[in-house]
Parts: sequence; structure tokens; C-alpha cells
Amino acid sequence: MNHALAFAPASVGNAAVGFDLLGHSLAGPGDRVRAKRSAQPGVRITAITGLPLDLPRDPLRNTAGAAVASLLAATSPGFGIELEIEKGIPLGSGLGGSAASAVAALVAANALLDAPLPRAALYPFALDGEQVASGGRHGDNVGPQLIGGLVLTTPDRLIPVPVPAELRCVLLHPPQVLETRAARAVLSAPYALGEFVAQSTALALVLAGCWRNEVELIGEGLRDVLVEPRRAPLIPGFFAVKQSALDAGALGASISGAGPSVFAWCLDSQAEQVADAMRAAGATQHGAGRCSLWISPVAGPAAEVIECTM
Amino acid sequence: MNHALAFAPASVGNAAVGFDLLGHSLAGPGDRVRAKRSAQPGVRITAITGLPLDLPRDPLRNTAGAAVASLLAATSPGFGIELEIEKGIPLGSGLGGSAASAVAALVAANALLDAPLPRAALYPFALDGEQVASGGRHGDNVGPQLIGGLVLTTPDRLIPVPVPAELRCVLLHPPQVLETRAARAVLSAPYALGEFVAQSTALALVLAGCWRNEVELIGEGLRDVLVEPRRAPLIPGFFAVKQSALDAGALGASISGAGPSVFAWCLDSQAEQVADAMRAAGATQHGAGRCSLWISPVAGPAAEVIECTM
Repeated sequence: MNHALAFAPASVGNAAVGFDLLGHSLAGPGDRVRAKRSAQPGVRITAITGLPLDLPRDPLRNTAGAAVASLLAATSPGFGIELEIEKGIPLGSGLGGSAASAVAALVAANALLDAPLPRAALYPFALDGEQVASGGRHGDNVGPQLIGGLVLTTPDRLIPVPVPAELRCVLLHPPQVLETRAARAVLSAPYALGEFVAQSTALALVLAGCWRNEVELIGEGLRDVLVEPRRAPLIPGFFAVKQSALDAGALGASISGAGPSVFAWCLDSQAEQVADAMRAAGATQHGAGRCSLWISPVAGPAAEVIECTM
Repeated sequence: MNHALAFAPASVGNAAVGFDLLGHSLAGPGDRVRAKRSAQPGVRITAITGLPLDLPRDPLRNTAGAAVASLLAATSPGFGIELEIEKGIPLGSGLGGSAASAVAALVAANALLDAPLPRAALYPFALDGEQVASGGRHGDNVGPQLIGGLVLTTPDRLIPVPVPAELRCVLLHPPQVLETRAARAVLSAPYALGEFVAQSTALALVLAGCWRNEVELIGEGLRDVLVEPRRAPLIPGFFAVKQSALDAGALGASISGAGPSVFAWCLDSQAEQVADAMRAAGATQHGAGRCSLWISPVAGPAAEVIECTM
């Protein structure tokens, strides 16, 4: 393969119950990256288009560049790669935008290899990219973007979690930029053991509900008593949007990734009314038409190659 | 039914990854409680035998008495109940001894009712009993004792967790009494978010491994970075016993309940060598023959009625 274009979806990191550990992909916005073989070794970023973002072109300071550099270092394909990045996910939205650039770039670059790696084998390279953006090796965005659906992401593994087919995610993105580093700073104060037990219980309920296909357990568990209370003050209108979703019948709602996006899980049959309620609450806070909203399966899509030439 | 005798097994609370939330029953020691209908209303404890323990006879200060009092208050059977408690589980051993008295008493008393409740419906009454002993409503001992096996225990629910059939628990009980209250006192200092993430990851790995029937995931997850480091200094020889189990091939090892008992999970095929190693390490620390040791399925037994008359 000489050239490949790949799409990686946005994702909902943390998913309320699994801070840095659980996330799911979202059918909606995404990043696209075009990779081309080049006679010049190494990685070069030749264009960054799409949303107006001030991203570094230095490949080792760019999540996509750093991820592909790691892939090349591990596979030594005998050629270099040029990347064109088209951003579709706003920066600082809590939708895994930096992760999606890394994943789309890896999936496109991998397609150029004579012996492409299995999708999950790209995970460590994606973490190398994520680290450039966030300073940490958190897989809760790159993991679900790579393999789709709801995924447990340890430092070494991606473990797919089955999702009841009727579960939908409604996501509201308000017109606010929240830097991940700022959203992490509020988490540094110490925690009590009781908070840990309550949040572990929530995680266990959601996982049990998924594996047992019992939506009721998921609804009982889908809450964040640990991180959400500390981050919510950074997100004007968060509680109003969350409450609107719960009042409309959502199973639970919380902050997507580091925020400011707000997500809710609900049954397919209630997705429209939950979406209407969240849109109305967002309009009250931010003005009509200023928020974006998506409805997606919780078992969202994986990144994919959407165009290629030999 | 006029009289019933019930047995409740010991249990391994916390199970390394689920503090106050996860536990499993143990084929080995247990408590026995005989319940008899009485014309006198309410609960009376007429005998406490077995291991020499100084337990209160006041039914509302005794875990068995308090649990059965709650059952009677909820069911109004029109008769009272006399209890004879035979302790088989040492107090302060980390084996759920107070829980087992409550569970055995409930299972025996329930059998006397004209319309006995389903086993899981006894859970809230068992928590009432547990609260008398520990001051908290922790279900990680009474839950598995009631329904058997490995169980997630929230304040409202018992959720059975499937266990790979080849998993065994080796448990060493050293000659030491560790009061639960003392073992809880060392946990009050604050925790860092990173400790929480690491321990959540461990919990998720064990649950995923159980539901996916993948022993490798369980082995990767079975660790306690949160509570064990704070409690281990209260248990002389803990690290030597734990390390002996790991060296002999155990998947993981940690403190049973509040300690001082130490448990290890391993494959059936390695249970004997793990047991030999833990026994030898215990003998080095405490002297030959001074520790007790059991090998049990992780999916241990439930409490049961073992004798009754009309």
C-alpha cells in the first residue's frame, strides 16, 4: 500500500466509573489522517487541516507523529511516512481528540506496512502518542478508538466489555475549552477510603451489568462520586445538563473524559427525549445552537481505513 | 419446623481487589447454630459452645441474635426463637467468624418459618447482624456465606461472580488475634488518586477474568496496593508467607478480611505445593504446627441446614 486514509472516532473516557481505565467510542465526530510512503526515513507531518487548532508540526511533539514514530521504530519498514491530519474533534472537549489523531495515524500507517499488525497490537504505540499530549499513558480513549465499543484499558491490555444492545450514549459538547492538565490539577487532593469503596462498587456494578446483560445493574452503578464532584465546578452548567438527562430517563450521566462534554447512557427508546432535554439545558446555559449533540450506540465504532491506493 | 441446625462456612473478605465489596466462601471451618421455636417471643441465646470465646449473650449485642431479631421483626412469625451457637471460626482471624454466626443463625431460624424466605432475601438481616460486630454494613463475608462462591456485595445486592473451575484458595491462619477495629484504624489516612486507579484496575482485571473465564487476567489483577500495605505491618510474617505462595506458583496472595489469615489463589494442579510452601513459611514464623491451613475451591460452599425436626 502506498497511501491510506483512516478515520478514528471520538470517545468517552472514564465512562463515569473507570477513571483512566474504561472508555467507549462514539459514532459522531472523528479525526482523519492520510499516510503516504516516503523515501525519506522517519515521520513528517505535511499538513494539519480541519478545525482551526494550533498543533505542533514537530512529529515528536504531535500525538500522531509520536505514535507513528514508535510504530516505525518497532517495525523498521524501510520507508518513511508523511502524515496529513484533518482534525474533526475539538481540542479540550473531553472527546479524546488527541487520542483520535494518534489512532487514525497509526491505523493509516499500519495499512502501509507489508505485514500490518493486528489492531490491538497498535495499543502501545497509541499510548506513546497519548503520552505526548497528556503526559500520561492513559488508554481509556485510544483503546476504544482502536477496537471499538466499551473497553477496559490497563497499561498492558485492551479488554472488550460486552454492552447490552439497547444502550445509547447521548453526548453534549458545550462551547468551552477545558485543558486536560487543568482538569487533572483539581484531582490532586487526597481521597478517603470510603470514596474509593463507593466508586469501586459503581465500577463493579457496571461491569457486572454488562457481562450479565442487566441494564438495571448498569443504571445502579453509573455514577462518579470520586472525580465528577471535583471537576464539575470547572464546567458551568454541568449539573443542570446532567439533571436534565436523568429527569428524562437516562440511566446515568457524567463528564466525558476531562470535560467539558457531558454524556448520558440511556435506553434506545429514550434516547430522543434525553437528547431533547440535554439540548434544552445546554441552550439555557450557553445560548441556542451553541452546543453540539450526538446520539451513539455505547458500543461505538472502531477506527477504520476509509480510502487507500496501491 | 420446630428445630433446625445450620452450618455457615468461613469466608475470605475483600479478596484482595474488592475492599468491603467482594468475598468468597471457604470449604473448611464454620459456625453451627441450632434454632428452636419458643413460646416466648423474641430471641434468646441459650448456649455458646465450641471455641472458648467471650461473646455477649445479650441477643442485640450478639451478631446471631441481632440478625434473627431483625428477621423476626420483619416476618412476625408468632413465635420466638432460641439459639445455641457453636463457634468453629476463631474470633479476630479474618475468616468472617462473626458473620458466620449471623448467617448460620438466620439460615436455621428461616427454616423454622412457615414460609421460609429465599436465601438472598436474608441478606439485609445478615447485615444487621454484621453491624453489631463491626460497626458497619459490610457484606463481603455474609454475602458469600449466604449464597456460596465469589460474590459482589453492594449495600443492596448480592451478585454472584462466576469462578473458573480450576481455581483453589489456600488459606493459612496463624496463631494471632487481630481485632477488626484495630485493622480498620490503620486505613483512615488519606489516599492518592493513583492508588485508586491501580486498585480499580486490579478489581476490573479479576472481574473480567472471572466473566471471561481467563485465569491469566485473574492472576494479573489479584493484588492489593491499597489496603494490604497499610495492614501488613500488623501481621508478623505476612510478607514471608505471601512470597512463599507466589514462589510456589500462586496467582496472587493477600490478607483475608482484616487479617491475620493469609490467602492465595492458585490452580488446582498447584494447590498442594502452594499449601506446602505457606505451611513451611508459617512454621518458620510461628513454630511448627501452630498455624491452621485449608485448601478450598474459590467457589466455596453456601450455608446449609444440616439437621432439622418437625
